[in-house]
Amino acid sequence: MTTTPRRDTYTPETLLGVAVRVFNERGYDGTSMEHLSKAAGISKSSIYHHVAGKEELLRRAVTRALDGLFAILDEPGAASGRAVDRVEHVTRRTVEVLVAELPYVTLLLRVRGNTRTERWALERRREFDHRVADLLGAAVADGDLRSDVDIRLATRLLFGMVNSLVEWYRPHSDTGADPEAVAEAVARLAFDGLRAPRPDA
Amino acid sequence: MTTTPRRDTYTPETLLGVAVRVFNERGYDGTSMEHLSKAAGISKSSIYHHVAGKEELLRRAVTRALDGLFAILDEPGAASGRAVDRVEHVTRRTVEVLVAELPYVTLLLRVRGNTRTERWALERRREFDHRVADLLGAAVADGDLRSDVDIRLATRLLFGMVNSLVEWYRPHSDTGADPEAVAEAVARLAFDGLRAPRPDA
Repeated sequence: MTTTPRRDTYTPETLLGVAVRVFNERGYDGTSMEHLSKAAGISKSSIYHHVAGKEELLRRAVTRALDGLFAILDEPGAASGRAVDRVEHVTRRTVEVLVAELPYVTLLLRVRGNTRTERWALERRREFDHRVADLLGAAVADGDLRSDVDIRLATRLLFGMVNSLVEWYRPHSDTGADPEAVAEAVARLAFDGLRAPRPDA
Repeated sequence: MTTTPRRDTYTPETLLGVAVRVFNERGYDGTSMEHLSKAAGISKSSIYHHVAGKEELLRRAVTRALDGLFAILDEPGAASGRAVDRVEHVTRRTVEVLVAELPYVTLLLRVRGNTRTERWALERRREFDHRVADLLGAAVADGDLRSDVDIRLATRLLFGMVNSLVEWYRPHSDTGADPEAVAEAVARLAFDGLRAPRPDA
């Protein structure tokens, strides 16, 4: 972080990147315009030139994460075909979007619901989860997914596993396998489990 | 929360319960002795009568969570038998301990590493994860768990799923299935996957 004031060469987009980093470090509630000003190295009034305030930055950031996630549901692999294949597509692609948009999805997953923007973000997250739960339900009805695990519980555990990536996945670290490899591991674990396939299977 | 001062009838144990609730609500960094005093409804000096300060409360709280988790590894089901059965035992019991000690494990999973106590807690968590990763490795070597998913990645995903419970599990809520049912769902998903067993299997 630099504290030396510098010429404001930010665009709303690059300023957003700085804000998301600070929100994730300090928590949204714990971040003031003063913190953002110091992290960006520009004055508060320069920031206000770009955005109305920190809630607008939050809204833009979580919108970016949510747009990325909801776009998955419109992809051909998610929109048509057998339900079980659609669920698997959504699972893999969610991992990939999460990794590609790591700071934005991290922020989305940490919002608490103290402001209108946060409550809206939580509502949209629930909507995404419901869409996936419906797909899971359809795959169970088709007989492709097991019926002995409650669908809501399965959805929560599946997303619990996927969303945990924001806590431990760091690109270029020792466990920083490439996104496709992580997506593959998540899909194998979630759909086929850790148990070795039986020789006769 | 009451702000009316009352007679100090706390024991170190009951005071700990209040502190853990406040730490989880405000974050450990964001909690002052003033906040603890208000939440407990007793003066700061009364709190200092019980403990040296907030870091001692943190240490006691995460110790309780860690003791619960490490005790699992000494249970007969975890200490002897085939590695795959030991991993499954540890997985189920981790879910049960997590649910039984929900606020304490929640706090443990949220520590950031800013203080000596937090760094110690992170170190102990890593030790627990390594012990389980070793068990997973042994089960892969036995041919009981699949060898095509990296063991460290599998361990992180498994704990990602288990630890997600602190975010969404609420006893007595609609998804508040009893702990054994949740442990069973976690074990089925982690070891056998969501896919329906094939009719000929």
